[in-house]
Amino acid sequence: MPGTVQSIERAAAILRTLAGGPGRLGLSEIARTLDLAKGTTHGILRTLQLVGFVEQDRVSGQYQLGGALLHLGTSFLDINELRSRSIVWADPLAARSGQAVRIGTVLEGRVLVVHHVFRPDDTFQTLDVGALLPLHATALGKVLLAYRAGSPVPDLEGFTRSTLTDPRALAAALEGVREAGWAYEIEEFLLGQAAVAAPIRGYGGLVVGAIGVSGPVDRLCDSHYQPLSGLVGYVRDAARAISRDLGATR
Amino acid sequence: MPGTVQSIERAAAILRTLAGGPGRLGLSEIARTLDLAKGTTHGILRTLQLVGFVEQDRVSGQYQLGGALLHLGTSFLDINELRSRSIVWADPLAARSGQAVRIGTVLEGRVLVVHHVFRPDDTFQTLDVGALLPLHATALGKVLLAYRAGSPVPDLEGFTRSTLTDPRALAAALEGVREAGWAYEIEEFLLGQAAVAAPIRGYGGLVVGAIGVSGPVDRLCDSHYQPLSGLVGYVRDAARAISRDLGATR
Repeated sequence: MPGTVQSIERAAAILRTLAGGPGRLGLSEIARTLDLAKGTTHGILRTLQLVGFVEQDRVSGQYQLGGALLHLGTSFLDINELRSRSIVWADPLAARSGQAVRIGTVLEGRVLVVHHVFRPDDTFQTLDVGALLPLHATALGKVLLAYRAGSPVPDLEGFTRSTLTDPRALAAALEGVREAGWAYEIEEFLLGQAAVAAPIRGYGGLVVGAIGVSGPVDRLCDSHYQPLSGLVGYVRDAARAISRDLGATR
Repeated sequence: MPGTVQSIERAAAILRTLAGGPGRLGLSEIARTLDLAKGTTHGILRTLQLVGFVEQDRVSGQYQLGGALLHLGTSFLDINELRSRSIVWADPLAARSGQAVRIGTVLEGRVLVVHHVFRPDDTFQTLDVGALLPLHATALGKVLLAYRAGSPVPDLEGFTRSTLTDPRALAAALEGVREAGWAYEIEEFLLGQAAVAAPIRGYGGLVVGAIGVSGPVDRLCDSHYQPLSGLVGYVRDAARAISRDLGATR
């Protein structure tokens, strides 16, 4: 890409490598993974360390992500309009549906979770904000795929026997999403779990995100293994309310 | 600093400017703030956009932080040992004390909150993870300052009439923290609020973080406006347990 700065692209690749790895990596390992000279890699790592994006372990000398990224990440959340407009509708949706609510947008061919309301009970749950989920195996992701004309078909990794790994089956499902105006997945990502989601539209009607509920199959689906229509209504109502607040024309 | 990459330092400065600003900034504004040429700034912004660290608003053309930072930020949390070792002790501390619990470490002269357990009641609370708090006006910060020999005295901004803005008063308070082994603040950051914190030690006994409870003065303090000794005991117990798990020798 012309007009870009190579060292910044390389720095971003190093950070991505550290985020995707086991936690800490040594200089040689990073250089080898990205096919960079060790001297070049060292200069970039020193700079990333200087600005707080990377920390070096005193004992092992290995590198890991730094705390400045946490502050930048939560600053992104603070100014993210999709999230700020969604929050007031996510809590009531969790209360009405009795299920966990998540709001997602597309990042690098996956669903980035920007908000997560726990299922309103006392079970142990971990916060998914910042997590990246597969587009083709989640209800949020199917919504985002269905309304993103021309987006490349992602890698169709299989998570369960029900995951749509055939591009034609996925294309048919996405056509169904566009017709119905909402998406679902049943045991396509995690066994025993299901989800329903609907599109959030921004200014001009463009789909900018998705909101959905997820939980146990026996709570989300009827005896015919289909999502409960009442639940679908709650999700679509919330999506419409957020879209209205974001200035969607319809 | 020799051996560092200038364009990466500048990219980090742009991200920091966007995080500190009102949300979105135009090219000219960013260039002016950092005293950079517009062409240079534009090339860096294009690259940051390419790697997902920055997004450009379609309508206004202004720049804001991008979603890739959220994922990197939560990846930092996932691999942060202080946080992962602290979590199991933070929940019981919140339950025993009936107050909110936060765990912090130092970032750029402030306290970076890496974990936050809400006060166990139904009041509305916002998650502080990723927030940066003043070192000199919080109990967490006083602990971190007290055990960081030679750290520069930060800017002593006054938040209330009780904030320690005099370097000598702060130095005396930090000496008291080292003698007692724990720190407190009463209405030094927010009116009506108080906090108690203790040091978390890592490998070799070095202080790597702090854990503390915070809440209303009338819940944390006795009739003499002093922190309740039972509460102090709970906080110190939790700090010791985490230190033990982190491999501190004492």
